[in-house]
Amino acid sequence: MSLLENLHTPSDIKSLSFEELQTLCDELRQKVIDTVSHTGGHLSSNLGVVEMTVALHTEFSMPQDQIVWDVGHQCYIHKLLTGRYDQFDTLRQTGGISGFPRPAESPYDSFVAGHSSTSVSAANGLAKAKKIKGEDGYVVAVIGDGAMTGGLAYEGLCNAGRSHDKLIVILNDNKMSINENVGFIARHLATLRSGPLYVRIKTNIGNLISHIPLIGKPLFRLMERTKRQVKRSFYHSSCVFEQMGFHYLGPVNGHDLKDMQRALQAAKNISRPVVLHAITVKGQGCDYAVQKPDVYHGVAGFDAGTGETPRGSDNFSKAFGDCLCKLAEDDPNICVVTAAMTNGTGLTEFSTRYPKRFFDVGIAEGHAVTFVSGLAAGGCLPVFAVYSTFLQRAYDQILNDTAIMNNHIVLAVDRAGIVPDDGETHQGVFDVPFLSTIPHVTIFSPSTYAELAINLKQALYDTRGIAVVRYPRGGEFLPTSAYKPDYKPFTHYRNTDSRTLVITYGRLFANTLQAVGALREEIPLSVLKLTRIHPIPEEAIRIAGEYRRVIFFEEGGKKGGIGEQFGALLAEQRYWGRYEVHAINEFMPTCSVEDGMHLAGLDVKSMITTIREADDLVD
Amino acid sequence: MSLLENLHTPSDIKSLSFEELQTLCDELRQKVIDTVSHTGGHLSSNLGVVEMTVALHTEFSMPQDQIVWDVGHQCYIHKLLTGRYDQFDTLRQTGGISGFPRPAESPYDSFVAGHSSTSVSAANGLAKAKKIKGEDGYVVAVIGDGAMTGGLAYEGLCNAGRSHDKLIVILNDNKMSINENVGFIARHLATLRSGPLYVRIKTNIGNLISHIPLIGKPLFRLMERTKRQVKRSFYHSSCVFEQMGFHYLGPVNGHDLKDMQRALQAAKNISRPVVLHAITVKGQGCDYAVQKPDVYHGVAGFDAGTGETPRGSDNFSKAFGDCLCKLAEDDPNICVVTAAMTNGTGLTEFSTRYPKRFFDVGIAEGHAVTFVSGLAAGGCLPVFAVYSTFLQRAYDQILNDTAIMNNHIVLAVDRAGIVPDDGETHQGVFDVPFLSTIPHVTIFSPSTYAELAINLKQALYDTRGIAVVRYPRGGEFLPTSAYKPDYKPFTHYRNTDSRTLVITYGRLFANTLQAVGALREEIPLSVLKLTRIHPIPEEAIRIAGEYRRVIFFEEGGKKGGIGEQFGALLAEQRYWGRYEVHAINEFMPTCSVEDGMHLAGLDVKSMITTIREADDLVD
Repeated sequence: MSLLENLHTPSDIKSLSFEELQTLCDELRQKVIDTVSHTGGHLSSNLGVVEMTVALHTEFSMPQDQIVWDVGHQCYIHKLLTGRYDQFDTLRQTGGISGFPRPAESPYDSFVAGHSSTSVSAANGLAKAKKIKGEDGYVVAVIGDGAMTGGLAYEGLCNAGRSHDKLIVILNDNKMSINENVGFIARHLATLRSGPLYVRIKTNIGNLISHIPLIGKPLFRLMERTKRQVKRSFYHSSCVFEQMGFHYLGPVNGHDLKDMQRALQAAKNISRPVVLHAITVKGQGCDYAVQKPDVYHGVAGFDAGTGETPRGSDNFSKAFGDCLCKLAEDDPNICVVTAAMTNGTGLTEFSTRYPKRFFDVGIAEGHAVTFVSGLAAGGCLPVFAVYSTFLQRAYDQILNDTAIMNNHIVLAVDRAGIVPDDGETHQGVFDVPFLSTIPHVTIFSPSTYAELAINLKQALYDTRGIAVVRYPRGGEFLPTSAYKPDYKPFTHYRNTDSRTLVITYGRLFANTLQAVGALREEIPLSVLKLTRIHPIPEEAIRIAGEYRRVIFFEEGGKKGGIGEQFGALLAEQRYWGRYEVHAINEFMPTCSVEDGMHLAGLDVKSMITTIREADDLVD
Repeated sequence: MSLLENLHTPSDIKSLSFEELQTLCDELRQKVIDTVSHTGGHLSSNLGVVEMTVALHTEFSMPQDQIVWDVGHQCYIHKLLTGRYDQFDTLRQTGGISGFPRPAESPYDSFVAGHSSTSVSAANGLAKAKKIKGEDGYVVAVIGDGAMTGGLAYEGLCNAGRSHDKLIVILNDNKMSINENVGFIARHLATLRSGPLYVRIKTNIGNLISHIPLIGKPLFRLMERTKRQVKRSFYHSSCVFEQMGFHYLGPVNGHDLKDMQRALQAAKNISRPVVLHAITVKGQGCDYAVQKPDVYHGVAGFDAGTGETPRGSDNFSKAFGDCLCKLAEDDPNICVVTAAMTNGTGLTEFSTRYPKRFFDVGIAEGHAVTFVSGLAAGGCLPVFAVYSTFLQRAYDQILNDTAIMNNHIVLAVDRAGIVPDDGETHQGVFDVPFLSTIPHVTIFSPSTYAELAINLKQALYDTRGIAVVRYPRGGEFLPTSAYKPDYKPFTHYRNTDSRTLVITYGRLFANTLQAVGALREEIPLSVLKLTRIHPIPEEAIRIAGEYRRVIFFEEGGKKGGIGEQFGALLAEQRYWGRYEVHAINEFMPTCSVEDGMHLAGLDVKSMITTIREADDLVD
């Protein structure tokens, strides 16, 4: 029986010997590799925090002490050590455990994550709450160097640094975010890394002294102060974390368990917030993951022995990248921005073919939009390619820094709609609702690659202001033969016998066609497929008004969605028939696309049921 | 005739002698004091940038060179020097010139502002566009130390610092934002200020050499490099801007015109982006403004001689602050966060009475929300008081970092609705649309101070998840006697003779009562006043369905507003009557509240017309 199987609560780990802990690290690595090879998930980042997480659990007591994982894709080891070993095989599966921290799942997950750079702000709040309520305990934020490119991390550090709370920020420095890390923080950390590895000696003395009762702590503090002064006069004078008010500790080898334990012990004894700088290697302990950390960052499954991954198939991201490369050949004004997602958004080829017109700004979506608006004001034709869920971070930059000036920018919104496997924090269901609140926004939602190409051209050349093209993760639902796209904002498939109209857009058009096809003999139906979904084409409203019943299927948030807007327009038009919207009502948990569709009543079978039920009610 | 009157284009200033420029500075100060004493506006910040702005216009050529003003409230001098002297008396008046940069107003306003910390990102985009398009010219961003507390500024600096564009960032260091500046950047700038004022000598040599053709520039660069190395080994090694890739120049006295000119000349000759650190005094040249820079930051008008300001009257912000102070007496879990708006949000008393439960996080709305969510997760009862327009900057923190966990926080949304005098960038018309897109959000919109007190209690104690209380800038519209608030989500004033229902909420309830009162003899009307506007009370929908006509008046954005949502619900309920929404359709320019109401058709007179017209159409 393995050691890991016997750990049922986080405190169980404290009874293991140091040698057993080292064995445990091996077991954890193997468990993660085995599981992720089947379930898919984040491999490299989890292999990089094995010793760090084990040390956190030997040195702290959860849930009195709390860990906030930044981004959160590196929480697998933590989950294995906090009572979720038995369910670990359900990782990222519908109804299974999430690949991200999820307070609803466990009291040991202290804060939600999924979006980058939030951990220090959250930990700042948790630590301050302990002080206000007079409760004991430490709060530890674990943040990667990549997440440090986000402005929220800066805001969090600036504020947390001037607190006097029991707050420890572990800076997990693996020299990259998903793509190679860029700019200031990368340079700054390189400087800090070049300093001596001094933790071992220092903390040994520190620990020894701090354990002598009464005089221990004051003496330790005196030494601390002296050391700090000496330290400052050397390379630490340039340490930005010290300037922010933190005690900087490091660099320490994040894969040396003993070093990590000692560093954490030292951090606990310091009377102000601490930044502990740990150097780790993404994929540590697994050759193929170390060699290609980007491939195994988020991976769909692989051969655990050889690391072989299945060949990727065509998808909307690739179709977008290919199309943009072609357009950029003829138009020197086209330029493209990504926020650390070059590969995910299909821009790898663009980045090598047009390096002077390609900008990776780091995990900084707010900056990306204002920068892009500046490019537009300067006469360029900029495109920001971004996942739907991450665009939420730039709402005000779209509204205030772009829409008010009516600058012409294109937002290529990837992962729009139901996003498989990653849960609530990664669903792309809010882009249509929040973008629709902003004046001067036009939104296209193509159903196929060919339509994406058309919409992208329309967004670039036939639209003023903010033009959005949104498309899902993965491939087409529709066989090319089934639909020939044109430049029109919508297509009306009229069945002259029908009194019911089904409206939809995006890849859901495929499901709709199937449902309508299946009901052909039973209920005559017309279909209206929107392509330019916002502003809603007036003619589409007029047409809908001719039917006795209108059913709107939408792969997106119901509140503020197109279905709701369509309903309001029908009401203002004095529509008297039956109108219903089927869209996504709640945060959608970890699931496959199919299961998500079913959950929201948007799979073919649910659609058929809905249409039938509604038909019974028509009067 | 003054010098100022004779400046019609920005290049006119270049023909003035140095002595004339100094006279011009005096004239500019006087003009700003005179005008703002009548129109109200931002006094201190504009008096602080007189010499800086004059130097910018003598050393650069607009519009080929471009200035991006951060926040933008310090652009008055720039406006006076770019052809807007004659209209300057219309500053902040309806139809007059804006108190903020406005590209729609002048080709010399290169980018919109109003929200903080955006200038470096925008300038980065403008400068990059020049490079892509092969156009010449510099881009200068002017950013205050207060704006440097925002994460977007950090993202902008990190990215701009690694470009090689002709970009100059003037850091206007007046040691405060609106409230006293806090944290890292304040400390860091204090360190930099303690360095020698070395610009004068250095730039003299630099200029001399750089003007010798051919060998000038390389020699200058060599000297630059040597100097940089020496500099680095001293205090500059800790300069965060150097670490970001900028050449740091300064500190320089921002009120010494000659120094500013020389520093800008030097900055132009440096081949990488430059941060020019200028020390200024808010209110410079006006005693009362220097002594109380916060009072004269944004001021409603004053006696130009003595500085005497009219006594402030009661308003919703004060009512909120008073109420919260009282509640905090009995509840030690209540804590409050502001993003550099202690006074504006009515929290001055709270901050002194409960300093341990009061947090000013700087201009960092994103951090504020995640921090507050952390406080809630830790068991506190946190309130974030924030202007509607600035809350736009925290959309994802509300959605991802709070709503997904269903953490209970209270957002006290001040300046909701039409905001006078500041224009498009400060209107509070988007909070309801964007907050409504987020699951688990409850929104209250009180009409009076007494109702605000009730709603605040409901938000704190009777609501789960995210509870929002939104109220306008300024005072009650309604005499206390006219409305007795209770704890109900809505009130229905039924006139049994009426076939028309008027729905509204917030302070617009007062206008509605007036309009309905004026029409009493003519058209019988019922009124439905919503207090909990979201989720819309189901019973309110049912009631509305009983009327043949429903008119919804809303002081907020129409797209995604409550009126639109109400319409969608009516449509799903098979409402067959006439439904219309009157709300705000477009970005609303600088205007008074009254004029804004009229523009949106929400003043009493417009309401009367609307109701009459609709009545004629009822069938």
